[in-house]
Formats: sequence, structure tokens, C-alpha cells
Amino acid sequence: MDRMTADPGTETDFRGATLEEVGQAARNHGMPLEGLRYDVTPIGMHYLVTHFDIPAADEASWVVDLDGLVERPLFLSMADLRGRPAVTRPVTMECAGNGRALMSPRAVSQPWLLEAVGNAEWTGTPLRPILDEAGLRPEVVEILFTGADHGIQGGVEHDYQWSFALDDILRDDVLLAYEVNGQPLPPQHGFPIRLLVPDWYGMCSVKWLERITAIEDASDAFQLSAYQVRQEEGGPGTRVTRKSPRALMLPPGFTDFPARQRYVDAGPCELTGRAWSGWGHITRVEISEDGGGTWSEVELEPAPPSPSSWRAWSFGWNAVPGEHELLVRATDDAGNVQPVDPSWNYGGFMNNMAQRVRVLVR
Amino acid sequence: MDRMTADPGTETDFRGATLEEVGQAARNHGMPLEGLRYDVTPIGMHYLVTHFDIPAADEASWVVDLDGLVERPLFLSMADLRGRPAVTRPVTMECAGNGRALMSPRAVSQPWLLEAVGNAEWTGTPLRPILDEAGLRPEVVEILFTGADHGIQGGVEHDYQWSFALDDILRDDVLLAYEVNGQPLPPQHGFPIRLLVPDWYGMCSVKWLERITAIEDASDAFQLSAYQVRQEEGGPGTRVTRKSPRALMLPPGFTDFPARQRYVDAGPCELTGRAWSGWGHITRVEISEDGGGTWSEVELEPAPPSPSSWRAWSFGWNAVPGEHELLVRATDDAGNVQPVDPSWNYGGFMNNMAQRVRVLVR
Repeated sequence: MDRMTADPGTETDFRGATLEEVGQAARNHGMPLEGLRYDVTPIGMHYLVTHFDIPAADEASWVVDLDGLVERPLFLSMADLRGRPAVTRPVTMECAGNGRALMSPRAVSQPWLLEAVGNAEWTGTPLRPILDEAGLRPEVVEILFTGADHGIQGGVEHDYQWSFALDDILRDDVLLAYEVNGQPLPPQHGFPIRLLVPDWYGMCSVKWLERITAIEDASDAFQLSAYQVRQEEGGPGTRVTRKSPRALMLPPGFTDFPARQRYVDAGPCELTGRAWSGWGHITRVEISEDGGGTWSEVELEPAPPSPSSWRAWSFGWNAVPGEHELLVRATDDAGNVQPVDPSWNYGGFMNNMAQRVRVLVR
Repeated sequence: MDRMTADPGTETDFRGATLEEVGQAARNHGMPLEGLRYDVTPIGMHYLVTHFDIPAADEASWVVDLDGLVERPLFLSMADLRGRPAVTRPVTMECAGNGRALMSPRAVSQPWLLEAVGNAEWTGTPLRPILDEAGLRPEVVEILFTGADHGIQGGVEHDYQWSFALDDILRDDVLLAYEVNGQPLPPQHGFPIRLLVPDWYGMCSVKWLERITAIEDASDAFQLSAYQVRQEEGGPGTRVTRKSPRALMLPPGFTDFPARQRYVDAGPCELTGRAWSGWGHITRVEISEDGGGTWSEVELEPAPPSPSSWRAWSFGWNAVPGEHELLVRATDDAGNVQPVDPSWNYGGFMNNMAQRVRVLVR
């Protein structure tokens, strides 16, 4: 994420994707937006990003070391972790780079349009009682999580890591998760165990978790400096944390290939979708048919028990013949509203601009 | 697949991917090549292509109609199909467009590098006894399969279809499959039921199977005219059928992000991978360190019971410091050998050029 695409833009202002971007896109994948129809995203449809390689892992010999500034270091086998109290939690997970390819110019990374999301049921054991058991020393400032995935990014060779201030991680809803949708984690989702931090973007939910370290200084782990909202390379930035609100529509009608233009029959057309925010419950979803000049509120399904899981919505649209562009935006109970246009930044993060769905009604 | 990318090539001769290609790549996905380590590809790692939308499906009400020129039309519920004799078969499935993005210029479609493959265990009931039960009339020439996926391609609105000459489909190993790796098909793999034709490229294994029709003329279904090896748009072509041989290597060492350059420590390095062919067993896999001038044979694992499933191989490589490019190619028992360079065609099909893995040994 240290350079921009240099190819000329096209009429849609999209700059041709580089070989590196295509290589990432062929490995990683979003949730096809038809996946919005399922309350729980089926395995294999959930979005996926792996920075480096998917590590080989053997559950029988896997150990999570909990060390650093603790009274009692722990060596947690999978049998130990599975023997602890288990919690299952539906969580909407989204990549911080969702929407990146809709910015121009964009960082050379995973070129997401809007599909980098999923809502799975994760099962694991709460983290906090384990930290309590180990006994954090008074001088602890952050908890650092290290995965088994290893590589080079930005010229720095490292194991993938993320670190949290105590207040951000000593939450009751943070899990060490070993199952998704009732099955052992697939290799690509962190088998045999991963961190799961609801409400934040996915980059912090470290996969293939090998080590938890209590530290007394703010971590300088590489990924913490990469996931920053900056206006220029190397400039001052703000670390990416919670998910901005977003509503997505299940594109109506049917599609062409490969452009994915939508075709809809004239008449009543029920539009449906999901919305979520890392800042609280979704309180409003709106649709605009005039480019964001005026907005109509959709009907929200009942709020989920926790705002960490997405909320369904529907809207009775009267499709009249012609070309249309439908915009969708969400508002959360912290007052955050999706913008109509992207808020550009160097790394291409947190672009929660309203979805635009072009539809040809016949 | 009716036009070529028009952006200028780069130094690697890769032409920037269009927005349509990136949109397809964000939905569909290959098997990250680390997946070569698993004999059976975990769910969610298997490659995936959906031309149109993933249809909504209800197993309880799903019916496969078997009609056309048969003595006794059948209406096959999922309960009926699941009540018939079940067979589980490991099958290597590959997209006919695998390698497309390594051709220049390339068709605007799914921009695969080399990851469009997977080897899953499919469970279903053999097709042939069902056709026998229905009773094909003497004038039947082809069997046409229709999926529930619907859209527009090449200006033609259609349900996805593939058709087979009788000899090609009246094989004992063709299944109507309802499980993969012991689980119900995920939506994106054809839930609740799909055709499974081993040895051929994946496009013919129609997903979301709704109808089987015995017909007396060669079908003019759209996809049959799209999956053609042609030298020019609209020119004469040859239909894509069986998989050409291919060997893939699990890239050794570790990677950088996002370019996926490989780094390997100097010394003995075991290279491993898989190879397959739709024309028979793999009889030889070779590695070249000099661009294809000379080749060394690798060690093949025992052949699988059926050549429809891939074969593992390994090679003890002595990694000496410096930059290397490793080429891998397979030969099958029909005598087909992978070429070093791509065999260009208009639609970007069947590019089974030898894999090239660049490695920096330190």
C-alpha cells in the first residue's frame, strides 16, 4: 500500500487494475451481493482477505502463548480453549478497504468494490476471563496479538499483528473463536483459532492466533501503521478502528455478464438489503432516486439483539421504464450518516460512500 | 467475452484490468495456491465462477424436470434424488478460463491467473440410471441441462445451459450432486443440486439444475457458442470440453504483499504441488530452472484411483542464493504436455502454459 495505480483513468474514472491487484482479487474475495439475502452468510460467501499466505496448521499441536507482563503466563492448547465456556455471536465483519476501488487514484492493494463483508455466527470463548486468569500487571497498556501469517509488506518482514489499548479489548464480546457457522474455522478464516473483535473492521481480528502479549508501551507493529487514514504517503494519520455505517442493497432484477448491469421488469419491485455500523444500531436507511437530492426512508426489520450484527431492510419501489440510479445510505444511532461521495485517503480505507445501483427498467 | 481490454500494456505485458473484470474478480475467486497442500480442498477455498446471480433456492420445493424425448418424463424432488443410490467422488474441477489473464490481449471476463481450480469430494446420484428410467427415445442426440441462473451475455438473455452428445454424458461417473465435502452444496456451488461431469472444465457442470431435456438436434444454447477456442471474434471455433493437463506448485517460502514475490531461505527446499488432466492419468511432472531449456522429473505420489482427481508430487530443490524462476509442467498418459508459452485464443480459454514461480533465495 505504498504506491498508487499509474494507469490512465477510463471514462468511469476507474484506473486499470494492476497485475498485483488482480492477483490479490483472484485469491481474496467479497460476498457476492446476492449474499445479502441470507441472515447468516454461508461459508465460502463471507468476504476474505489474507495479506500473506494461509499458514499450515495442526489443531492437536497448536498452542496460543499468553505472555508478556502477566502474573501467570498461559499456554493454551485447543483442547483447553474448547473446554472453556463457549459463546456464539453473530457478527458483521467488513474489510477496512471496502470501497477502495471506487476511489481515484487508489492504493495498490485488494481492489474492493463494495462486497467485502459477511455476517457469520462465530463460536469461541471470551477473551477477558483468560486475561484475568493470567493477571495483567498494572503497567500494561496494550494487548498485542500475533498470527502465524508471515511476510513482507512495506519493506518490513513481520508476523501479522494487531494491538489494542486495554479499554478497546477488555470487552465482554471479544472472543477467541474456533468455529464459524457451527463448523471448525476453514483454513482461510484462521484455523484453528482467531481473535474476533465485533464492531471493528476485520483487520484487527487476527487469524491463526499464536500469541497474546501484554505490553507496557504502545505497539509499533507494522499493520498498525498501515491501516491509517492519511492524506499523503507517510503523512500523519488516524488508525482505522470501528466500522463506519453502510447499507447495501441486493441488486434487483437480473444481471448481464461481465458488466453486471441490472435489468428489472416494470412494476412493483421489492428492494431489500442489510445495514450495519460499528458505532451502534442502525436507525435509518434511505434510498434516493435522484442522485442524493431527496431521500425516502425504507422499512427497517426489528433491530438485532446486538448492533454487531447487520439489520435487514426493505423498500417497495415502483419501477417505471427507463434508466435509474438508486442510492442507498444508512444512519446509526451515534448520528453517523453515509456520504454520497467518497472521502479520499491514501490507503483507500473506510470508503463508506452510498452504494449506487444502476438499473434498467423494461 | 465479446471484446478485448484496450488499456496499454505494462512492462510485464499485463494490460490494466477493467472495472468489469475487477467486479467479477471481487465476486468469484480462485483457490489460493496454498490450497494445493490439501488433498481435498476445504469449502470456501475451491474456485468459483458464477456468470449471473446466485439464485435463491428452496430445497423442499425444488424439482428437476426430466423431459423432452423420453418415454416417461420425471419430476425429481430433492427427496427423490437423495433417496437414490449415492456415490462420493473426488473430482478436480477447473475453470476453462484459468490462465486467461496471462494472455495478451485478453477477453474481458473473469481475469484468472492460475488459481481457478479445486479438488472436492462430491456426493450425488449417478445420472445414467435416471436417464434409463425415463427412457431415451431413439432419436435423441443430445442431453441439455438448464440451471436456474438467468442473465444476459453477448446480448442474449438466457438461462445458463450446457448440452452434451450422448456419448459424452452417458458415463457412469456423471453425478447429480447435492453435497460437497460431506455438506449440502453452498448456494454459490449450486444448491440444492448440480450436474457434475468429471474430466471436463467446470462450465459444463451446470449448477442450480432445474431441467434435463432429451433433444434430437444439436443444441444452440448460448454458452456452447461462448466457450469456444477461436482465433477471432465470431470466427470458426472448437468447443471447450476436457481439461488440458496442468501442474501447479505450492509457491515455496513466504510472500510479500501485494505483489506476492516469493522469498526462500537458501538450502534444501521441498517443492510440492498437484497435477491433473482431463485426458487421463498424469505420468510426468517436470521442473525447469532455466526457462524451459532443461527439465528435471519430480517424484509423483501414487496415482489416485481415478484420474479425475489430482495427483500429488514433490521435488527436492537445492535453493542457492539469487533470483530464480521455476517452471512446472505436466504430461498425461494421452501424451499431452503443457507448453511453455500460452496458446492464444480470443476467449482466453485453456491456457495451460507452464506455471512460472519467481523466487528470491536469500
